[in-house]
Amino acid sequence: ETDSSNDTNPDSFHRGEDMRWQEPLDRLYHRHIGPSPEETMDMAELIGVASIDELVDMTVPAHLRTQTDIEFPPTLGERALLEEMKRLGDKNQVFRSFLGLGYHDNQLPPVIQRAILENPGWYTQYTPYQAEIAQGRLESLFNFQTMICELTGLGISNASLLDEPTAAAEAMGMCFAHFRKKKTVFLVDENTHTHTLSLLRTRAKPLGIEVRVQPMSDFDLAATDVCGAFVQYPGANGAIADVSPTIARAKEHGVLTVCASDPLALTLLEAPGTLGFDICVGSAQRFGVPMGYGGPHAGFIAATSDWVRKLPGRIVGQTLDADGNPAYRLALQTREQHIRRSKAVSNICTAQALLANVSSMYAVYHGPQGLSEIANRVHHYSSALAGIATAVGHTLESEMFFDTVAIKLNGISADAFVAMAAEHEMNVFKADEHTIRVAFDETVTEADLATLAELLAGTPIDATAASPHNRIETSTHARSTEFLTQEVFNTYHSETEMMRYCKKLENKDISLVHSPIPLGSCTMKLNSAVEMQAVTNPQFGNIHPFAPESQAQGYLEMFDEFKKMVCDIAGYDDMSLHPNSGAQGELAGLMTIRRYHDSRGDTKRNVCLIPVSAHGTNPASAVMAGMVPVDVKVDPDGTINLHDFSTKLEKHKDTLAAMMVTYPSTFGVFEEDISMYCDMVHDNGGQVYLDGANMNAQVGLVRPGHIGADVSHFNLHKTFCIPHGGGGPGQGPIGVKSQLSPFLPEQTRGTADEWDISGAPHGSSLVTTISWAYCRLMGKDGLTDASKFAILNANYMMARLAPHFKIRFTGTNNFCAHEFIIDCNEFKASTGIEAGDIAKRLQDYGLHAPTVSWPLTNALMIEPTESESKPALDMYCDALVSIRNEIREIEQGKAMVGDNVITNAPHPMSRVIADDWHKSYTRTQAAYPLEWLRGKQMWPTVARVNDVYGDKNLVTSIPPRS
Amino acid sequence: ETDSSNDTNPDSFHRGEDMRWQEPLDRLYHRHIGPSPEETMDMAELIGVASIDELVDMTVPAHLRTQTDIEFPPTLGERALLEEMKRLGDKNQVFRSFLGLGYHDNQLPPVIQRAILENPGWYTQYTPYQAEIAQGRLESLFNFQTMICELTGLGISNASLLDEPTAAAEAMGMCFAHFRKKKTVFLVDENTHTHTLSLLRTRAKPLGIEVRVQPMSDFDLAATDVCGAFVQYPGANGAIADVSPTIARAKEHGVLTVCASDPLALTLLEAPGTLGFDICVGSAQRFGVPMGYGGPHAGFIAATSDWVRKLPGRIVGQTLDADGNPAYRLALQTREQHIRRSKAVSNICTAQALLANVSSMYAVYHGPQGLSEIANRVHHYSSALAGIATAVGHTLESEMFFDTVAIKLNGISADAFVAMAAEHEMNVFKADEHTIRVAFDETVTEADLATLAELLAGTPIDATAASPHNRIETSTHARSTEFLTQEVFNTYHSETEMMRYCKKLENKDISLVHSPIPLGSCTMKLNSAVEMQAVTNPQFGNIHPFAPESQAQGYLEMFDEFKKMVCDIAGYDDMSLHPNSGAQGELAGLMTIRRYHDSRGDTKRNVCLIPVSAHGTNPASAVMAGMVPVDVKVDPDGTINLHDFSTKLEKHKDTLAAMMVTYPSTFGVFEEDISMYCDMVHDNGGQVYLDGANMNAQVGLVRPGHIGADVSHFNLHKTFCIPHGGGGPGQGPIGVKSQLSPFLPEQTRGTADEWDISGAPHGSSLVTTISWAYCRLMGKDGLTDASKFAILNANYMMARLAPHFKIRFTGTNNFCAHEFIIDCNEFKASTGIEAGDIAKRLQDYGLHAPTVSWPLTNALMIEPTESESKPALDMYCDALVSIRNEIREIEQGKAMVGDNVITNAPHPMSRVIADDWHKSYTRTQAAYPLEWLRGKQMWPTVARVNDVYGDKNLVTSIPPRS
Repeated sequence: ETDSSNDTNPDSFHRGEDMRWQEPLDRLYHRHIGPSPEETMDMAELIGVASIDELVDMTVPAHLRTQTDIEFPPTLGERALLEEMKRLGDKNQVFRSFLGLGYHDNQLPPVIQRAILENPGWYTQYTPYQAEIAQGRLESLFNFQTMICELTGLGISNASLLDEPTAAAEAMGMCFAHFRKKKTVFLVDENTHTHTLSLLRTRAKPLGIEVRVQPMSDFDLAATDVCGAFVQYPGANGAIADVSPTIARAKEHGVLTVCASDPLALTLLEAPGTLGFDICVGSAQRFGVPMGYGGPHAGFIAATSDWVRKLPGRIVGQTLDADGNPAYRLALQTREQHIRRSKAVSNICTAQALLANVSSMYAVYHGPQGLSEIANRVHHYSSALAGIATAVGHTLESEMFFDTVAIKLNGISADAFVAMAAEHEMNVFKADEHTIRVAFDETVTEADLATLAELLAGTPIDATAASPHNRIETSTHARSTEFLTQEVFNTYHSETEMMRYCKKLENKDISLVHSPIPLGSCTMKLNSAVEMQAVTNPQFGNIHPFAPESQAQGYLEMFDEFKKMVCDIAGYDDMSLHPNSGAQGELAGLMTIRRYHDSRGDTKRNVCLIPVSAHGTNPASAVMAGMVPVDVKVDPDGTINLHDFSTKLEKHKDTLAAMMVTYPSTFGVFEEDISMYCDMVHDNGGQVYLDGANMNAQVGLVRPGHIGADVSHFNLHKTFCIPHGGGGPGQGPIGVKSQLSPFLPEQTRGTADEWDISGAPHGSSLVTTISWAYCRLMGKDGLTDASKFAILNANYMMARLAPHFKIRFTGTNNFCAHEFIIDCNEFKASTGIEAGDIAKRLQDYGLHAPTVSWPLTNALMIEPTESESKPALDMYCDALVSIRNEIREIEQGKAMVGDNVITNAPHPMSRVIADDWHKSYTRTQAAYPLEWLRGKQMWPTVARVNDVYGDKNLVTSIPPRS
Repeated sequence: ETDSSNDTNPDSFHRGEDMRWQEPLDRLYHRHIGPSPEETMDMAELIGVASIDELVDMTVPAHLRTQTDIEFPPTLGERALLEEMKRLGDKNQVFRSFLGLGYHDNQLPPVIQRAILENPGWYTQYTPYQAEIAQGRLESLFNFQTMICELTGLGISNASLLDEPTAAAEAMGMCFAHFRKKKTVFLVDENTHTHTLSLLRTRAKPLGIEVRVQPMSDFDLAATDVCGAFVQYPGANGAIADVSPTIARAKEHGVLTVCASDPLALTLLEAPGTLGFDICVGSAQRFGVPMGYGGPHAGFIAATSDWVRKLPGRIVGQTLDADGNPAYRLALQTREQHIRRSKAVSNICTAQALLANVSSMYAVYHGPQGLSEIANRVHHYSSALAGIATAVGHTLESEMFFDTVAIKLNGISADAFVAMAAEHEMNVFKADEHTIRVAFDETVTEADLATLAELLAGTPIDATAASPHNRIETSTHARSTEFLTQEVFNTYHSETEMMRYCKKLENKDISLVHSPIPLGSCTMKLNSAVEMQAVTNPQFGNIHPFAPESQAQGYLEMFDEFKKMVCDIAGYDDMSLHPNSGAQGELAGLMTIRRYHDSRGDTKRNVCLIPVSAHGTNPASAVMAGMVPVDVKVDPDGTINLHDFSTKLEKHKDTLAAMMVTYPSTFGVFEEDISMYCDMVHDNGGQVYLDGANMNAQVGLVRPGHIGADVSHFNLHKTFCIPHGGGGPGQGPIGVKSQLSPFLPEQTRGTADEWDISGAPHGSSLVTTISWAYCRLMGKDGLTDASKFAILNANYMMARLAPHFKIRFTGTNNFCAHEFIIDCNEFKASTGIEAGDIAKRLQDYGLHAPTVSWPLTNALMIEPTESESKPALDMYCDALVSIRNEIREIEQGKAMVGDNVITNAPHPMSRVIADDWHKSYTRTQAAYPLEWLRGKQMWPTVARVNDVYGDKNLVTSIPPRS
């Protein structure tokens, strides 16, 4: 057996002794996995096993093990991968994109590309829960919130959502919840993007909301069952309508108003908040983020300030630290699903942090004047095109627009025009048989205008003479309010200053470039540089999500291959790439199950059994899917309580829709009986949703589809190496067994049975390239080894820490899976130290904490991943053991309760360098508890943040400069 | 006049009020230049001028001003530039390269590409003269030296040279100097690369050395006039000869032995040092550096330990810091030309630091085992090819080779074979009419072998059956000695560890990502991200320097355009891109002058007048060009002493070859009389060499070719934005007036009159792309503004500092040019403080010092460049003023002489956090002298380095692990 040779023979592991001499040596395989062969043997010895395979055999129940090899295309070396990536990229056809529809080509400033999008110091950060070592991106996300507030004229913004359509759906949910779900009609202006309409309908149905699509002039705002009214501004056809009468009537009748808008347009148009809208949603994509065949990019949502505690998603707030200095942190977490579970305002549990940062830096770089100039130039081009169109005999659908000109063609069909444009490698949108739309963006050139003018005229004409009449400036729509007056948007306008600002923020934040981030349940493995190469390749970046599929053949070939690989890994028959986050994947999976039941006439099946140990997202998603979540108890060891399960199953058997289960369990254990539970669900007419969050411990070892699951989502940012990005992007494709395949979400293009989970057909396509690359580079053996080494590393750390800490919930043979839990409750009574304190103290060791108090209160869940080397794991263990010794000092009375290195942690540099020092311990004990820390580069930049103060005194954006 | 509007109207400066509405807005122009329009007006006010143009008019002598506009192609926006770059890149044809000749395709690990080559934290660093804030790259260069020592088996290596042929020339110079220039014959084995032979001949001639090219078996080593013997190992045809008899005979007769070798081959072949060679040279290019159509990459030179004080170039040494901790710094600087001037061991004044770092990181990543495996794989492929060749009836030139197989063809001419290979997009080398050579590298694939096998056989054959016989392993040539046993080469083998190691070193070093580096005479301006894009584009990177020109049409078009632009800027008629550093440019320019004189029969003209204020490189280059440097005195204000000049001119008029002059002067002043001096030189039969180091103050304002100069070199890393790279790469093209044009260096390809300055036809082509991009992005107006703002920024800083420091040597109207000098002599007597102390103290302010004690002892020369904003300049001035106040405290007796914040500077973090504090000042005074420093991110990582200790106790590489 080739696998078992890996851990007994160093050479064969690293280079493959049985490898043919012709094979390339630039395999990612032995670069991705941290421990060297020699280290592996040392680790196995400490754990007490003879080999890594013995460990895996003793950890993963044999009857669940994958029996057949994964079937995979050949493994590629790094160079061959880059060549294959280039081949696929070149197979995509990058046309000039004038399709609009909320996705626009733009110019990512190269300094931001290098400093952020291609920089692991920015893209490998975790969600900033450890605020003191995350002040950089918290500041940047605070800038994002400020930018959105300023552009929309509203008081509060979150730190981004997944895209514009899902943001619209969240806004609808806010309106619905506002009236305690009693007003069930949501009015939507018909001049709204089709994909937004489709998503609103999809999300409305399970919640019992009626989406009524009409011209806004027909809105019956006096009706008592209307909770909200939604208007796209500018409209889908580019037209800028007068929204004031609608808003006035809505206010009169207490109906909430929502608009979807465009941040670039808003530099010229009056702000939605000023116009009176309650909520505004949209996409920041055109602020520097590639179209990427659909994503990722930052959707946004803003609302009037009174909404702050009901706004979904993450919100960055300003507070004070323990030394009284200003500090940022994530605010109002009590709203979120990891605490509120089924009562959360949404199942949203991530942002698009990396892309929000790119967009806010784009605004920082251009400033208000620069953005206005870009907007005016775009508008001038559009206006010139409109002038040409009418001059040569066509008609405009609207005289008032920002960037999108809808032209009713005279003497030529829309199809013919689209075809002619395609011959010039240009995409224009066919609105109906005789109408096209042309949406310009900041990349528009004179050549573009000239070509389109010639096509409109049927003969070459002088487009340079076109008048750039500014239609907005002279209209009532012109913006009267200042925006982005804050210093940060008016300072970093030279490339040197911009580069330094990005670096200054980067250097405040811990990321994988410094040390391990061993977060239980949130794999933080290597995001290799080679995997990331397609992300900033224009052949992948500059494809519009609604470009003809003939232009995306490289993507589609890659997707096919990727789906086949993941289906094979997971034992599924089909897959959808549509959901653009794990939570969206959950929703998509559950709705797929519902649609399956519905198709069989089982319309009453709406109960979803969920163990109480599940991620909070599970019950929140179930609610959004129109299901009734029913808790199932777990035993103290984290396994499902069979009695409670059986009881609930019996009770709900007639209405059972699904069970959701996480495997390995959220306690980090491979449960032996998983298949039995699946069988019981099936026997009672339900389907099994296996949460794929922990798939990274199963690849090549266990196939969810083979052990009883019917559907799973896969967090590509976990198992499949998409970087965490400081809190997004994610991508959450779902795999299903064949019976569910017909009910997978399909992109809405006029099908009767349309349903949509995200705006773009294939979700966040651009980052799927990363996961595809990872699979091709690792190959089936490499991927399997990744799982094995994840298990090895976790068990090694557990073995090292077991003499010092109380370990909870191990599985068979007392091994853990890929993560394990340290219980910190024993310290509280005698020392006052809790898990959260240990987390803060780890910052003084230059380290990021494990997951704190999840799934157990006052515990730490540690997941080292396969990418960490033994020295890195040892360093981390040494730090934890040292902290244990510091706790012992308190226990023994050698250090003071309430004034000790842990309670006072973290210690920012400014504190240990201060002239005055009045602690009961030394500066050295505070800053350099271990000798190797003397060279440490990562320091908390603030003292412990005060969450309570911050939530009481909410500040979520920078005040305008007065 | 458009120029003058720039500084009076903010809008027109930033966006161009007169700009047509159609124009793109993504201009580099206002991103490259630091001050905003508003800041510009504030700065002019402080300086006391109405506008920037008034300042320039009062600074640059009117009679020298450029009268006509620069003629330039249209200015491009960033996106348009990237499109043009792509067009030119796609015009290059990337064939599989089997040419060898010292340039090899290879696989740059993506993690190193991102972490170093594309990371401004690595590429914008300055030469590590301020060692305490440069420990990162000093460690990396120390690794490079260790790597070279280990591979060559020699005791001492420098931190890199420009390329293999120049390294060979330096080695020849060492041999020549060793015998006090009394032994004039240098024997060279004929099996040496043609371009190395050419360069040896070029460099030998002016020094009076006779290069005798023979088969090494014919070497007359007993002859008393032989200083050295040179052997390439493996030879140019790939053959590995038995060098032992030659070495033995040489030793017997006291002749020095030099070999040129290949670092990858040396992982398999016995080390040159072990074989007995005194010196080994070569190129580290194939360790991860793209071929780049010739460069840049790191040449190397190593020698037995007794050579240490005579080895040319930079050497990193280990020493102790003031706290007794180990620290790195540049060692033995007294050897170098900035101190030794015409007596220096060489005119080399830079390294290829960035590329040396890439190569040493490549070795760190692969380790000895990985490198051996790569080498063996390459060798197996070569061996298999050789087996196939003989099996199908061809003959080998040698049975013993590493990667290059020389095949005497049977039944087909070399031309025909080369043509057939080209049809498969492969380049093989034609050695003679019937012989080809195929050199494999780590990128070789089975498909390559199969294609070549088919071509050799004339029909498809099964190449997979070829035997990978390891010819070296079983021979006497096999390496018997261990190498790279040091921990650093055996630790960072996972990508995660590698990424962290790169980041750890990066974060120790100050660079432009942190703060200004305002070095007089060493412009450290923005290296914009967009300009850098071609550097890691394979369409530019993967072109072999001796690939057919038909495959390099993109490069050649770019070069043509670039030459035209720079010639127009500088007022020259022709240009050569051949010299790959500024010092090489000097040598090339002076030799061009000599060849011009020779062509006219003026063979005795060999005197070169050089003001004593000139860069030390000038006299060193003159010596290497076979000239006699004659010092010309300067007046106290830095201007040439007319009397001395006239006297020397008169004295040497019959032998006058040239005058070398720097303009603006090395004292930072536009001398009024420059043209007069030029005329006087011409009247006496000489040519004027204008050192283009300060060209950045002249672009668009003064044309050297119009004010009297005949030739100049241009430091592309200064004026034209090639990043400094922590001490290289450079590129030093020379521009000439028409009379010198016929004598420019041409690449040697069999011409009778061959002469070579660097190995590759166009020097370091890959980085020339950066300068081309800069010119196209800035346009003529932008480039002119760059000069103006360089002058503005310097005069602003001077105005701010004049109340606090003594300013030396201003020009007309008491303005400086682009740099100015602060005299620190006044502090010494009363406080003991010297310029060097201020430099160290600036580190505590998170800043890099200006140029210290050049051109004046105990002075600081400050050159802020145009890329710095007013806030950045103010921050720097505030720090200097604060230090002035600290000096005043000593003057006033409030601080102690000998124990004060300056004398003890820098203060590393470990010192100010120590529990004990026994200084006469507080920690806050040490670390946070100004309030805004509380957030500082850049700290010196060691205390002041001890140069004397280090030079006395030389350690220049890591000892092998025992």
